[in-house]
Amino acid sequence: MPIKSNDPAKKSWLPVRDNSDFPIQNIPFGVFLTRDDIITIGTRIGDHAIDLGALHQMGYFKDIPLTDDIFLQDTLNDFISDGKKTWRLVRNRISEIFDANNSELKNNEEHKKIVLFTMDEIEMQLPVQIGDYTDFYSSKEHATNVGKMFRDPENALLPNWLHIPVGYHGRSSSIVPSGTPIHRPMGQTLPAGSDEPIYGPSKLVDFELEMAFITTDANILGETIPVNEAENYIFGMVLFNDWSARDIQKWEYVPLGPFLAKNFASSISPWIVTMDALEPFRVESPKQEPQPLPYLQQVGKKGFDINLEVDITPEKGEPTTVTKSNFKYMYWTMSQQLAHHTVNGCKVNSGDMMGSGTISGPTQDSYGSMLELTWRGEKPLKLKDGTERKFIQDLDTVTIRGFCEKSGVRIGFGEVASKLLPVFQSKKK
Amino acid sequence: MPIKSNDPAKKSWLPVRDNSDFPIQNIPFGVFLTRDDIITIGTRIGDHAIDLGALHQMGYFKDIPLTDDIFLQDTLNDFISDGKKTWRLVRNRISEIFDANNSELKNNEEHKKIVLFTMDEIEMQLPVQIGDYTDFYSSKEHATNVGKMFRDPENALLPNWLHIPVGYHGRSSSIVPSGTPIHRPMGQTLPAGSDEPIYGPSKLVDFELEMAFITTDANILGETIPVNEAENYIFGMVLFNDWSARDIQKWEYVPLGPFLAKNFASSISPWIVTMDALEPFRVESPKQEPQPLPYLQQVGKKGFDINLEVDITPEKGEPTTVTKSNFKYMYWTMSQQLAHHTVNGCKVNSGDMMGSGTISGPTQDSYGSMLELTWRGEKPLKLKDGTERKFIQDLDTVTIRGFCEKSGVRIGFGEVASKLLPVFQSKKK
Repeated sequence: MPIKSNDPAKKSWLPVRDNSDFPIQNIPFGVFLTRDDIITIGTRIGDHAIDLGALHQMGYFKDIPLTDDIFLQDTLNDFISDGKKTWRLVRNRISEIFDANNSELKNNEEHKKIVLFTMDEIEMQLPVQIGDYTDFYSSKEHATNVGKMFRDPENALLPNWLHIPVGYHGRSSSIVPSGTPIHRPMGQTLPAGSDEPIYGPSKLVDFELEMAFITTDANILGETIPVNEAENYIFGMVLFNDWSARDIQKWEYVPLGPFLAKNFASSISPWIVTMDALEPFRVESPKQEPQPLPYLQQVGKKGFDINLEVDITPEKGEPTTVTKSNFKYMYWTMSQQLAHHTVNGCKVNSGDMMGSGTISGPTQDSYGSMLELTWRGEKPLKLKDGTERKFIQDLDTVTIRGFCEKSGVRIGFGEVASKLLPVFQSKKK
Repeated sequence: MPIKSNDPAKKSWLPVRDNSDFPIQNIPFGVFLTRDDIITIGTRIGDHAIDLGALHQMGYFKDIPLTDDIFLQDTLNDFISDGKKTWRLVRNRISEIFDANNSELKNNEEHKKIVLFTMDEIEMQLPVQIGDYTDFYSSKEHATNVGKMFRDPENALLPNWLHIPVGYHGRSSSIVPSGTPIHRPMGQTLPAGSDEPIYGPSKLVDFELEMAFITTDANILGETIPVNEAENYIFGMVLFNDWSARDIQKWEYVPLGPFLAKNFASSISPWIVTMDALEPFRVESPKQEPQPLPYLQQVGKKGFDINLEVDITPEKGEPTTVTKSNFKYMYWTMSQQLAHHTVNGCKVNSGDMMGSGTISGPTQDSYGSMLELTWRGEKPLKLKDGTERKFIQDLDTVTIRGFCEKSGVRIGFGEVASKLLPVFQSKKK
């Protein structure tokens, strides 16, 4: 059954620019600080943010079973816990309230003053309290590129890669929303040719073009999520920049994996786009050869056609788009990632976040990191201002954008933009 | 200045058995469900649990700046956020209230009825909401044993090990308190001699004898904790069993580290013993050669002399102690771990947990895992009931105990005991 709020013919009475990421068919969820310094849960249509807490208080969701304070919270975790049926009821109802043919709010100037904000009046927050964050490594092109550079060009993929959606645990505490500047990390690195590590600022700070999905409470400890039910436990997706320090990574990652090379910062786009909104953009995921084990065998289209691109903007300069990729290149799907993550009974909670891993496409201009785009720095990229980049420089802003487009409807994620600042100057003694 | 609540001569008016882990010099913190089904924060003396929420409501902490509901919570996170000075004031005050020479509560039968519980009346909970959990790999003996078994007996330690307190992120959601049974995990493994993985129950479930420390809010994103200030941000310690599935681990862990082999369950002892209580048991940590980089150079005694032992108890049988180790063997100290973890600005919050890694001693009977004790299963251990163990069998209970002892005072952690159940029978379709 088609989801009625996805109807391409639908228009909102709120203005929506051509090519906006946020038409009435999107209806993402986020958390923001209002002009009155109140934190609320909201959605966005065009360039208006909508206070769902206020709408609920005024009775606009009275036919949906929701607790009174469900939107008056500083995270979406409890709403996400309410489950897929509730998410859909709320999204459909928002679609109805803002439909061009519906006048209940449209004609109520007093209510509109309370619930509508322009984007410059609000400050987006982290949308969820992230309990656990896992990062996968599910782009075959990325894993192959890394394998060629650091291991064996002839056997770039490790033996387990085609059998396992390889993943590892990351650090939740360092995940920040778009707009939060981050600092170049200090750390240990091993200079080429030396066997004594040194301490200093990372010289090889990189972005990683990723997306991440956010889960609801999925199981009890011990219980497995079957691969073909996994999507029921996925609330939605965001853009994800998994900042990486390649020199720290190289020295630390054997044998227990990346740690300080990754956990200094990861940045996400603040609006969670629901799986319902992404439904029209399903595509086949890449054919898997060899066939995975039965617990990973999925039925139907589990890939999503999401265009992705990354800009680098120097402190005084215009943006240069350095790569264009697509989420559809992912070899392992979100369903397989979640089924694998819980095959051993690992508990998944509301607000957990799972990153895709770097999303590299098949061509050199679709790679998802500077490491790959410049092939370890061997082929620097030229920016529009004439300067070159092997990796990210201090005061550069990295911006990831993502959107789907089909039948005249564009559903987007907005962006995650973050500026790399120089090393933090500590105030501690 | 000595901490007055540590005075070895002090006695409580509450009964304390000889060899109890919980004399009045301990005063750990935990969270429990009372006989009235209320969750409260409490402490323990002898075999009595003490409801700090009720004590606070009745005015016993009136001279300490605390919010009214600080102990009426289901986690210690907010109390831990209050910082070291407050922890010390509260612990000293508890020590005063329960001192044999103090009659304010001792002679108030009505109050005693409200605040005192016997251990069988309560149910211990997880003491903190664990935001992020990190596991280190800081026992040189353990890293050497693993290196000998799986890599190169001649070069057992990897090149970075003597320079870095190697660690990796773990899964918070699967950490459970003592007494919670866990299930044998399902997963992928690679049979010997094959290049096709199979799916099935892990055959090599193991314990890992560890301890973990719990932090308070330590920094803002970007900021580093200096090694010689790190202890200010450590609230206390627990016993930690980092359950591991060795066959799953072997197949999955290259290149991003252990994942499903570890995140099916980890078990902790429920009482957090404060660093103040552990103060008398400081010892020199092992000499570090080569000298670590300056950001890891510590001053003073940063090791702790904590006796550790592990029992295996079959379903119908008596316990067999399979190893005796000591926390003092740790090559890298908690201070170094926390300084390293934040050298890149990674944010550390109240309630974060950091595991030591398996604590193996220098002799074969002090190794911290079955993997090492039976040397990959080559030398099975004999239990008292005559059965043998290479790894842990279904229905075995693994119990870790830990205690310090000096000048007639014993400060203990109680135990973390957990039973391994067979594979979970899912109710999902």
